[in-house]
Amino acid sequence: MKIDIIEEGKPIVLYCRGKKWLLKVEDREFHTHFGVVNLGDLIGKPYGCYVETSSGERIYVLKPLLVDFIEKLPRKTQIIYPKDLGLILVYADISSGSRVVEAGTGSGALTSLLAMHVKPNGVVYSYEKRREFLEIAKRNLANMGLDKYVRLCERDVVEEGFDVKDVDTVILDLDRPWDMVSHVYEVLKPSRPFIVFVPTFNQLEKMWKAISEHGGFIDFKVFEQILREIKVEVGATRPYTRGIMFTGYVIFCRKVLNHQD
Amino acid sequence: MKIDIIEEGKPIVLYCRGKKWLLKVEDREFHTHFGVVNLGDLIGKPYGCYVETSSGERIYVLKPLLVDFIEKLPRKTQIIYPKDLGLILVYADISSGSRVVEAGTGSGALTSLLAMHVKPNGVVYSYEKRREFLEIAKRNLANMGLDKYVRLCERDVVEEGFDVKDVDTVILDLDRPWDMVSHVYEVLKPSRPFIVFVPTFNQLEKMWKAISEHGGFIDFKVFEQILREIKVEVGATRPYTRGIMFTGYVIFCRKVLNHQD
Amino acid sequence: MKIDIIEEGKPIVLYCRGKKWLLKVEDREFHTHFGVVNLGDLIGKPYGCYVETSSGERIYVLKPLLVDFIEKLPRKTQIIYPKDLGLILVYADISSGSRVVEAGTGSGALTSLLAMHVKPNGVVYSYEKRREFLEIAKRNLANMGLDKYVRLCERDVVEEGFDVKDVDTVILDLDRPWDMVSHVYEVLKPSRPFIVFVPTFNQLEKMWKAISEHGGFIDFKVFEQILREIKVEVGATRPYTRGIMFTGYVIFCRKVLNHQD
Amino acid sequence: MKIDIIEEGKPIVLYCRGKKWLLKVEDREFHTHFGVVNLGDLIGKPYGCYVETSSGERIYVLKPLLVDFIEKLPRKTQIIYPKDLGLILVYADISSGSRVVEAGTGSGALTSLLAMHVKPNGVVYSYEKRREFLEIAKRNLANMGLDKYVRLCERDVVEEGFDVKDVDTVILDLDRPWDMVSHVYEVLKPSRPFIVFVPTFNQLEKMWKAISEHGGFIDFKVFEQILREIKVEVGATRPYTRGIMFTGYVIFCRKVLNHQD
Repeated sequence: MKIDIIEEGKPIVLYCRGKKWLLKVEDREFHTHFGVVNLGDLIGKPYGCYVETSSGERIYVLKPLLVDFIEKLPRKTQIIYPKDLGLILVYADISSGSRVVEAGTGSGALTSLLAMHVKPNGVVYSYEKRREFLEIAKRNLANMGLDKYVRLCERDVVEEGFDVKDVDTVILDLDRPWDMVSHVYEVLKPSRPFIVFVPTFNQLEKMWKAISEHGGFIDFKVFEQILREIKVEVGATRPYTRGIMFTGYVIFCRKVLNHQD
Repeated sequence: MKIDIIEEGKPIVLYCRGKKWLLKVEDREFHTHFGVVNLGDLIGKPYGCYVETSSGERIYVLKPLLVDFIEKLPRKTQIIYPKDLGLILVYADISSGSRVVEAGTGSGALTSLLAMHVKPNGVVYSYEKRREFLEIAKRNLANMGLDKYVRLCERDVVEEGFDVKDVDTVILDLDRPWDMVSHVYEVLKPSRPFIVFVPTFNQLEKMWKAISEHGGFIDFKVFEQILREIKVEVGATRPYTRGIMFTGYVIFCRKVLNHQD
Repeated sequence: MKIDIIEEGKPIVLYCRGKKWLLKVEDREFHTHFGVVNLGDLIGKPYGCYVETSSGERIYVLKPLLVDFIEKLPRKTQIIYPKDLGLILVYADISSGSRVVEAGTGSGALTSLLAMHVKPNGVVYSYEKRREFLEIAKRNLANMGLDKYVRLCERDVVEEGFDVKDVDTVILDLDRPWDMVSHVYEVLKPSRPFIVFVPTFNQLEKMWKAISEHGGFIDFKVFEQILREIKVEVGATRPYTRGIMFTGYVIFCRKVLNHQD
Repeated sequence: MKIDIIEEGKPIVLYCRGKKWLLKVEDREFHTHFGVVNLGDLIGKPYGCYVETSSGERIYVLKPLLVDFIEKLPRKTQIIYPKDLGLILVYADISSGSRVVEAGTGSGALTSLLAMHVKPNGVVYSYEKRREFLEIAKRNLANMGLDKYVRLCERDVVEEGFDVKDVDTVILDLDRPWDMVSHVYEVLKPSRPFIVFVPTFNQLEKMWKAISEHGGFIDFKVFEQILREIKVEVGATRPYTRGIMFTGYVIFCRKVLNHQD
């Protein structure tokens, strides 16, 4: 079996009894409810192994998945949840080599997912007008090792539009997406997806209206997802009582040409 | 603008008033409720353009997205729906270059999504014991241009296990996944995801029990998703009355090692 | 055991293998996929017994519940579903002796439920402007034996308001409920519930706005319910795949006085 | 307008800015975040009026609805939520004069709803084996003025069965309902509803199996409801982000006779 070895400076996830911590491997002690771990001792061990804490508990050391990073993402804004990220990813129709436009960047959750799926030859063009968010997103993407597939751009795209052409997919999650429709039409390849995430019914309707009035988009769909987590206990299985009831609406459509050939 | 031109023999989607057809471009007439289109006339036109039918209706010509193929997939089995595909894709943590095991292949819906996301250097090892399904999946993958990223294998994996090693992710959607746990443990890299799709409560519980009893897996989650489509009509917006209420449960966990180093 | 005997002219439900028929007992043959039953033969038998059809199948004879009538209600409009009826009934806070205003009557589904719960000394004042609906509702209520607890009134309440006073609860399910707020305020007792059923997001918002602007109502709640039916098969239990995804929103609030004493 | 006057010793709901308190009117000060109210001053005022607190805020005085009592019920157990109470009430098919069996009593939430709907001539026979719950339920029912329609009985019905006959409806919400099926069959009138509330999938299946094996029940349905509350803000309307994802399953069926006449 090929073995992946824990190295200094790399991100890891520690896992103990349902709790997870996302950390960097460095020579220091890490204190938990379950006892103390010396992170430096992990260097050279294989991912997936466990160590015993000072209290004799097993803590497992995992190589982070992208969802671990996203769950623990330092953020200043509400991020899009994994359930919606999945739906967006499937409908965005991207893969290695794709060129995607995203606005706004926010804390970089969606950006990171897109980057992971267009790498190594694709690019995510991600626009954000608020510098402090760009800084957070930049750091987040670097921590995930995904910064080289993203071109972050400080720009008020509602006012100024994009500075790229012929992209495969455009995804918007920002205020006033309805003022962006002609900018989107301009940069998107024909027959390709335009996706918008909006958190209220009113924005959904306003966006829909803007797209319809602009013309040049077809195959509209609007989705909303309710995700339930199930608590499996053999003999007492049931969904968890409380959870996230609503996040937002995903609007999907595709660009067409206004001419016959 | 770089223009993508419709070529003979290539798949296209025709779209008219909410209806879609997935076809191959060839020199023949295609009859719809909205009139007749001569498919041969499309050759040389750009994707995204429209043509007028014999009845004067505009029919748009789109380059298919993967979801178009999946929606229209010739199938002999129930396929996994896009909403669940998205969630699986996010938690599978794959990207270009990943090596993924999937069983069973079924009609190849999930296979195609995985292939699209590991290409061009990754591989989907997809196992299926029923030859007639393999044939369907093979044809479907070829039509989507994704067959070269998939190694289809006729094999009863419940009995015989897999014939690969050190894969990044394992995804099961077959009968008796509970008899597969040690096979999965053997081929999966430490700290990487094991995902199972099951359509009933009982299978969920049985699978959970099998994984727990085997040991070596942590970070369990079970998800179920309800997707609603919204009918947007400015001034009369509401979810559609009828829809898909339930598809299945997605089980997620990760492999760990049973030793400290 | 006290026994309830089937009488001529009374409504019954026949039940066979998951199928139900709501019928009147009279001397005629009734043909089903499961064979023929002579309805006249049922007279004098106890409710709950079975008879054998010409094909040897058991058909059970049930005394109808109100939900049987509602499910099979001859109708010209969409009726409110049992799931929403239940929520409305609980929040309407009615019981034997209550005086309730309902508009519009529609086919009488909600009317019948209200009547059943205010009888024998209460009254449902039910208003409808379309005579053909009133006729249907009248027949439906008579078939259920609930007509004597309902005062049906042909009246355009949006234009003319109600002709009662001091009622315990008002429930609206009609077009333009937003034009009814002052009428409702006038007839409802202080601190009592005002409930509105609306089928779209836009009507919800419009109604909310109308109530807020009018003033005199507090304790707002808006509910939406998703009901799933579960298919229980021992060893293969799961929700049904398809179902009703959305019906409408239930708005609840209560009248208060605009003065201190 | 007939006016309902606040009397000493009666229950009231105070309402201020979305907050509610269920209290008894007596000569004392009541302290809230919004200032102080002298409850004694309310005597003689009409329900629905407001008073000003020491801080100048309006607090409305409402006559409690049953749902107010249920929401604020002193309890030792999880109670059934209003959404499920509504569904149960509709399928229970009860009304003034009905005789209903309920077990266990718990804190009396369902008991109170049933009592309100069978009064004044019906009876709820409510069984509970744990004396401390009976005491709580007794006090709760007395506070709501519904105790005279309920016959509370301390009894382990799983072991001893019921001590009534020919009831219109039986509703169970207790451990081991599967051991109660023949007891239920014995006391229920033919063609009438038997309803069970269970909180896990396993209990659902076990109960189903017990009913099927016993025989004598038909027209099975199992429901689960997801209720969402909508946050209406004109221009920013959306469901609340967090909420109750799951409560339990409602099983419905009806008794039939095992003979033809």
